[in-house]
Amino acid sequence: MKIHACAAALVTACLLSSPAMAQFQKPEDAIKYRKAALTVLGSHFSRIGAMANGRVPFDATVAANSAAVVESMSKLPWEGFGPGTDKGDTRAKAEIWTEKAKFDEAAKTMQTEVAKLNQAAKTGSLDAVKAAFGGAAQSCKACHDAYRSN
Amino acid sequence: MKIHACAAALVTACLLSSPAMAQFQKPEDAIKYRKAALTVLGSHFSRIGAMANGRVPFDATVAANSAAVVESMSKLPWEGFGPGTDKGDTRAKAEIWTEKAKFDEAAKTMQTEVAKLNQAAKTGSLDAVKAAFGGAAQSCKACHDAYRSN
Repeated sequence: MKIHACAAALVTACLLSSPAMAQFQKPEDAIKYRKAALTVLGSHFSRIGAMANGRVPFDATVAANSAAVVESMSKLPWEGFGPGTDKGDTRAKAEIWTEKAKFDEAAKTMQTEVAKLNQAAKTGSLDAVKAAFGGAAQSCKACHDAYRSN
Repeated sequence: MKIHACAAALVTACLLSSPAMAQFQKPEDAIKYRKAALTVLGSHFSRIGAMANGRVPFDATVAANSAAVVESMSKLPWEGFGPGTDKGDTRAKAEIWTEKAKFDEAAKTMQTEVAKLNQAAKTGSLDAVKAAFGGAAQSCKACHDAYRSN
C-alpha cells in the first residue's frame, strides 16, 4: 500500500513537472494560468466591491482576507504574457505586445493600487477600504479597456 | 478627467459586486472560480515538482514563492463546491456531494500536506522539499482519482 502510494506520487510528480527554463510547457498553459490568476483576483475584488458600495454588510475579516488574495494574485498573471501567448483562447489585444512598456506600466499601477487596498483592508476600516477601492477598480478598468477585447 | 475616472470606478464597482449572502452570483461563477484557484495551484505545484524530481535546477526562492502560492490557493476552491455546482463546465464527480464528509476530509488532507510543503520550502533545503512533495502530490492525486472525471 505504501509502495503503491509512493509510486503514484512519483508518477504525479513526473506528470506535473515542466521542462527546464520554462514555467509553461505550451502557450495555452500560460494563457490558462494568467486567466486563472485574474479570475481568482476578480472574484475576491468583487467581494470587497460589494462591501465598499454597500451591497453587502462590511465584514472586516472577509475584506482583509480577500484583499490579501487580491494583492497576492496581482503579482502572478504577468509571466503568462510571454512570446506566443497572443493567440488562442484569450481576449488579450495585440497592443499588449506592441505597447509592452505601456502595458507593463498599467500592470504595475494595478499592483500598486491593490497593495494600497490591502493595506487599507488591514486597518479594518470600511472608510479606508472605500477610499482605496476606487483607485484599484480604476486600475483594473483602465487595463481592460486598453488591452482586453470585449 | 478626475470625475470621469471616479465615475468609471463606481461603474466597475457596481458591475463587480455580488449580492448579499452569496460569494457567487451563479453556479457557473463558482465553478469557474474553483477551477481557477486549482489551475494556479497546479501551475505552481508543478514548478516545485520539476525541482523536486530534478528536471530543473533547485532555486530556493522560486520554490518558496511557489509553495506559498500553493498553500494560499489550497484554502480557496472549497467554497466553490456549493449547491447547484455539480452540473456545468466541470469534471467534478457526483460523489463530491454524495460523499461530502469524505470529500471534505480529502480536501483537508491536501491542505495539511501543502502546508507542510510550504514549511519545507521555507527552509531552503531541496531535501526537505523532496520529502514533503511526495505526500502533497499524493493528496492531489487521491482526490482527483476519487472525485474528478477524466
